[in-house]
Amino acid sequence: MDAIEVIVAKRDGHELTTDRIDWVIDAYTRGEVADEQMSALAMAILLNGMNRGEIAAWTQAMIRSGERMDWSGLDRPTADKHSTGGVGDKITLPLAPLVAACGAYVPQLSGRGLGHTGGTLDKLESIPGWRASLSNDEMLDVLRSAGAVVCAAGSGLAPADKKLYALRDVTGTVESIPLIASSIMSKKIAEGTGSLVLDVKVGSGAFMKTVEQARELAETMVALGTDAGVRTVALLTAMDRPLGLAVGNALEVEESVEVLAGGGPSDVVELTVRLAREMLEAAGIAGKDPEQALKDGSAMDHWRRMIAAQGGDPDAPLPRAAETMTVAAPASGVLTGLDAYAVGLAAWRLGAGRARKEDPVSAGAGVTLHAKPGDVVREGQPLMTLHADESARFERALEALEGGYAVGPAAGEHLPLVIDRITA
Amino acid sequence: MDAIEVIVAKRDGHELTTDRIDWVIDAYTRGEVADEQMSALAMAILLNGMNRGEIAAWTQAMIRSGERMDWSGLDRPTADKHSTGGVGDKITLPLAPLVAACGAYVPQLSGRGLGHTGGTLDKLESIPGWRASLSNDEMLDVLRSAGAVVCAAGSGLAPADKKLYALRDVTGTVESIPLIASSIMSKKIAEGTGSLVLDVKVGSGAFMKTVEQARELAETMVALGTDAGVRTVALLTAMDRPLGLAVGNALEVEESVEVLAGGGPSDVVELTVRLAREMLEAAGIAGKDPEQALKDGSAMDHWRRMIAAQGGDPDAPLPRAAETMTVAAPASGVLTGLDAYAVGLAAWRLGAGRARKEDPVSAGAGVTLHAKPGDVVREGQPLMTLHADESARFERALEALEGGYAVGPAAGEHLPLVIDRITA
Repeated sequence: MDAIEVIVAKRDGHELTTDRIDWVIDAYTRGEVADEQMSALAMAILLNGMNRGEIAAWTQAMIRSGERMDWSGLDRPTADKHSTGGVGDKITLPLAPLVAACGAYVPQLSGRGLGHTGGTLDKLESIPGWRASLSNDEMLDVLRSAGAVVCAAGSGLAPADKKLYALRDVTGTVESIPLIASSIMSKKIAEGTGSLVLDVKVGSGAFMKTVEQARELAETMVALGTDAGVRTVALLTAMDRPLGLAVGNALEVEESVEVLAGGGPSDVVELTVRLAREMLEAAGIAGKDPEQALKDGSAMDHWRRMIAAQGGDPDAPLPRAAETMTVAAPASGVLTGLDAYAVGLAAWRLGAGRARKEDPVSAGAGVTLHAKPGDVVREGQPLMTLHADESARFERALEALEGGYAVGPAAGEHLPLVIDRITA
Repeated sequence: MDAIEVIVAKRDGHELTTDRIDWVIDAYTRGEVADEQMSALAMAILLNGMNRGEIAAWTQAMIRSGERMDWSGLDRPTADKHSTGGVGDKITLPLAPLVAACGAYVPQLSGRGLGHTGGTLDKLESIPGWRASLSNDEMLDVLRSAGAVVCAAGSGLAPADKKLYALRDVTGTVESIPLIASSIMSKKIAEGTGSLVLDVKVGSGAFMKTVEQARELAETMVALGTDAGVRTVALLTAMDRPLGLAVGNALEVEESVEVLAGGGPSDVVELTVRLAREMLEAAGIAGKDPEQALKDGSAMDHWRRMIAAQGGDPDAPLPRAAETMTVAAPASGVLTGLDAYAVGLAAWRLGAGRARKEDPVSAGAGVTLHAKPGDVVREGQPLMTLHADESARFERALEALEGGYAVGPAAGEHLPLVIDRITA
């Protein structure tokens, strides 16, 4: 078998056999298939698609490229959540300790941000001392002592996906539902969780811009998880506006701690509780009330143990950006819209995100919102505050926000927070 | 500008602006755009196409990546021919000196064979002493003394095309009419010829399997040449069966010399004379008869001068393969077909072609035909002779020929030698 044969088959619209998929993933991992061959194949897949059978074989081949973790020796069921990424999406931070407090183990391998969406590890790293890299044994220790662990995936997990993801990132081949679905699910299945809730974001701040695309991605991933023996369910949720009032690394940790303390913005609380219920149901845990666990301090207790177990100081003050700037309402009326992508791009330009994987992020940079769509505002009232380490960054952040919000006579249309629920 | 922006535009079906094309070809030549990015773009172009304007800009950008030769100081018009490649296609060998004998200068940059099609330089290199690599000054000297020069393109000519062609070869992105047309025409326009006749082959032994594909390629190339100020015309010609009776390097030189001596197979003579007439007309030379130049020895005289001027000995015996094997007619009747691809593949496996660019070729290997489609044959009569340096090669050559010829009660259908003529 050779790479050209596989590329030409997909280029000409044929189904890839499992043999061909197994061979090309293995040969690519070993370096026998070159990057320029894999990128041509990725483009052919993006344009000609893969059917469910091909996607399943592709995912299995990526899982087999590395190790597969196993938590079956633990005394409680495991549950995980994965979000496809959005602006202000800090839900993992309150959710993991909350679900742990309700009796599941939450072993979550997370990623870093790239582009306008934030990364869970970047957010947690704004906590002084906190470490993202753990060995498998350390992961097990944290899980046992705190019930939840959020850390970086080791290099042994789905190495084919790691290599392919970096390649897709520079070759314009990210936006393929078969490749997105198999990338996410290969890591989640290899991670060894028993149940999985997918939060598929829809809207300007998400990868999936339409409900139809998001539904296709969700259905594909739910089928992949289910076929691999992972109890999997997906929610389609709104990302037309930012989630919560804070966008940025330390800013989102702060908001997450508010939620764990029983407060916080209503949309963050609602989505956290809803996802917790889905995770508990998928894990087969009945009779637990996540709202109660937020109120009685047990979720906060698990958070503090989880942060401390990974070297972090849950009581240390969080970094703050040196410079701030207020954006005022241009008129009196109703805030008719606040575009998630515009706010995400502004936060990115303020320093909260990175352009290249090797770039550092600013812990304190970001955007805090003082009004959400539908709120009544008066001309001159602060709409948002920009935070950055250097004031020179404000200009391009303001450019990003131009046209991204508006004040009018009546509230605009927006997506419901939870749009749909997809099961196998 | 960055590579991803250009890739995504074509991926999503947009027209590439001239700015984007200029940037990406230049950045790829300089190494700023990586091979894996260019191969993704090539796949997107293969699947989504390019319009005439994009193809013209792409071709011009490839020309500008290197030097452009200029023969305008010469005292006679220049004319060149390019064939898209076939089996037994040695036409350049008799044609270049023939057209020179009729009063044009023929500066022809040629290539080597890859796969089942032969390469003009490989054929000429079977002549003892003959050199393919010439400096521009040497090229001019040969042109002045012999009227024709056939040599390898220097590395300064369309380097972007050289790099892209090698990439397409390993990434399944060869079969794109926009990329084939721009690759051929960038080299031919940079070569500086004043007029150009394109021989676009059609059939199993050609890149273009159907008349429709060949017509599209021919029309694209004629438009490109015309727009660049080169008087360009194309013929669509048959490649469902081999051209002539000899397939292989020295074997084809031998047949070419027969044609220059006034003999040779009728299809080779007919196509050589027809292409010569087209070249003379495109070059604006009237009142010359190529048939006469073959008969009166003037074409042969130019051949001998051309070979000698490049270090070759036109009187030296040509290499012959050590081993031969005869393939006999399986029955009595009419030879109903003789598939060009099967014969090309057999010759390749006998040693006449190469699998990788760095492989050597055998000068003596190949196939000689003793009957052509439509000829009456008797059972047991020799149909063809296989030539190889080692007899171990015969088995796989015979496998290649299986099903590639048949004897039946009546002649089969085949393409006319000249199918169509395409002008601007």
